[in-house]
Amino acid sequence: MRNRLKASDAIFASLLVALVMLIAGALSPGLAQEALPSWNDTAAKTRIMDFVKATTTQGGEGYVAPEDRIAVFDNDGTLWVEQPFYTQLGFVFDRVKTLAPDHPEWKEQAPFKSVLAGDLKGVAKSGEKGIVELGMATHAGMTTDQFSKIVTDWFATAKHPKTGKLYTEMTYVPMRELLDYLRANGFKTYIVSGGGVEFMRPITEKIYGIPPEQVVGSTITTEYALVDDVPVLRRLPKIDFVDDGPGKPVGINQFIGRKPIFVAGNSDGDYEMLRWVTAAKGPGFAMLIHHTDAEREYAYDRQSSFGKLDKALDEAERRNWLVVDMKADWRKIFGWE
Amino acid sequence: MRNRLKASDAIFASLLVALVMLIAGALSPGLAQEALPSWNDTAAKTRIMDFVKATTTQGGEGYVAPEDRIAVFDNDGTLWVEQPFYTQLGFVFDRVKTLAPDHPEWKEQAPFKSVLAGDLKGVAKSGEKGIVELGMATHAGMTTDQFSKIVTDWFATAKHPKTGKLYTEMTYVPMRELLDYLRANGFKTYIVSGGGVEFMRPITEKIYGIPPEQVVGSTITTEYALVDDVPVLRRLPKIDFVDDGPGKPVGINQFIGRKPIFVAGNSDGDYEMLRWVTAAKGPGFAMLIHHTDAEREYAYDRQSSFGKLDKALDEAERRNWLVVDMKADWRKIFGWE
Repeated sequence: MRNRLKASDAIFASLLVALVMLIAGALSPGLAQEALPSWNDTAAKTRIMDFVKATTTQGGEGYVAPEDRIAVFDNDGTLWVEQPFYTQLGFVFDRVKTLAPDHPEWKEQAPFKSVLAGDLKGVAKSGEKGIVELGMATHAGMTTDQFSKIVTDWFATAKHPKTGKLYTEMTYVPMRELLDYLRANGFKTYIVSGGGVEFMRPITEKIYGIPPEQVVGSTITTEYALVDDVPVLRRLPKIDFVDDGPGKPVGINQFIGRKPIFVAGNSDGDYEMLRWVTAAKGPGFAMLIHHTDAEREYAYDRQSSFGKLDKALDEAERRNWLVVDMKADWRKIFGWE
Repeated sequence: MRNRLKASDAIFASLLVALVMLIAGALSPGLAQEALPSWNDTAAKTRIMDFVKATTTQGGEGYVAPEDRIAVFDNDGTLWVEQPFYTQLGFVFDRVKTLAPDHPEWKEQAPFKSVLAGDLKGVAKSGEKGIVELGMATHAGMTTDQFSKIVTDWFATAKHPKTGKLYTEMTYVPMRELLDYLRANGFKTYIVSGGGVEFMRPITEKIYGIPPEQVVGSTITTEYALVDDVPVLRRLPKIDFVDDGPGKPVGINQFIGRKPIFVAGNSDGDYEMLRWVTAAKGPGFAMLIHHTDAEREYAYDRQSSFGKLDKALDEAERRNWLVVDMKADWRKIFGWE
């Protein structure tokens, strides 16, 4: 009898633990006051939270079923820093330096020459053609598994040129909180970026909680091949799909197959995506991150080479897109502040 | 005091209900004896269940973390019937008939002429070129939203030519059970089909429990456009990606970005996908559905125009791929039997 009592006590205790976890899980999305702690209490935060409340309130006019709560985020300049140049360009520069010993001809050959000399203006002068050439030389010619390892290894040590912090630490805390907040409210979060999909996938789970299959981006052509009778996918030096501008709605339709109801971007490269999402029938929320904080991050918009924000900024008000003012709306920008 | 007691009783009662649901949910994947009821108790069923048990047993040698439990399924001939012709071809034939009044020239023009005359041999004679022409005439020229509605409406009434059942009822019950069983064990299930992705997405949730974003397939090019200043995606008469043969591993890598550990197919169009999955380090399970039941379904393999199974069948044994014998291994094939 005594043993039976003990056993039932143990069962009861573990049931209690399960219960507490169950209740905590059920309650946490409701703790709205604690959401988005790195956001100041400005209109931006209120608008976001009002939208989420409306779409998740059952029986309400703006209610959206969980399976349709798709949220898409641009990456460069929206989730992490894109100045003084895109992170992926930093990767390209480092790879060119790493591979240079095997390519003595690069010393005399544009645009490689400029990269090796640390001459960013020379790289810029080589234009889109030069950038594509650099991209192909560093992103193609290996298998997908090999490339994934190269990227993972690079992110383990590569540092931002201005702050000296790891690139993986150069993400915006308020946006990571927003991702968490949306997920806690039943949203499925995706990245939809002009960046290379296989450059992002190895690290998005770790830094954003976004798994590889929820990353949409630009792609190069891959080819099935047998190497010593083992099947691999080879990365060819050929651009397959550019997930930027009008390519973003195309990419979303192709990869996700549902229209999102929440979209965040920061540049004219996101313009068509924002229009497409907010033109749809039913609820649709769009936001633009405006880089206004020269002290804590960078201040740029209409004239920037990276993340130019011009047309989308002009039209934001009449299209009812939220413009987030980084300086005014964010209490904190980076985790290491 | 009395009220307090009552309140606590009510709380306790609702907690108990929550608990029962929690426990039932936690236990159900473990009720292995009740899984796959439409499978006979043959070696095929045992092999599948042994694999799932190994990959889900924590601490075991073959354990796979839930996020890596990706399972991919071919569609035609693997999840639903592909005889006497692909379901999508049935859609093409019906659309040609529906659109014919607007195209009087089709009466004299191959391959449309053959379709309108119900002459399948004539259609076959027009070859790949003819099929592509039919495909473009019926799949392009409208917006993605319009196409989705056309497909949804078609599936609501379209019937299989032999059984007279709705195409949506022509799915294999044992495979739907397998999808459920894998999902109950933490697997994420995908379709990876040579069929058009936008032909499948409107119905896969309903018939397989697979949401649109977990459907990989062939695509045609779409283009962002403004119609009366409203953004839409237009379907162009241009093939973008063929998700068949060597295209299947390419598509999986591009759309999912993880290597599956479970793959099911039924034809040589799945060969490269099966090889790629089972060549990977770590656990990998591959199965081929062999259509052996002329009475309850169809019997075909090496000579078939649709779902030809030849090379993959030859190599199945030495590659340790499970060959499912529909006649012997399946107690039931369709839901309406």
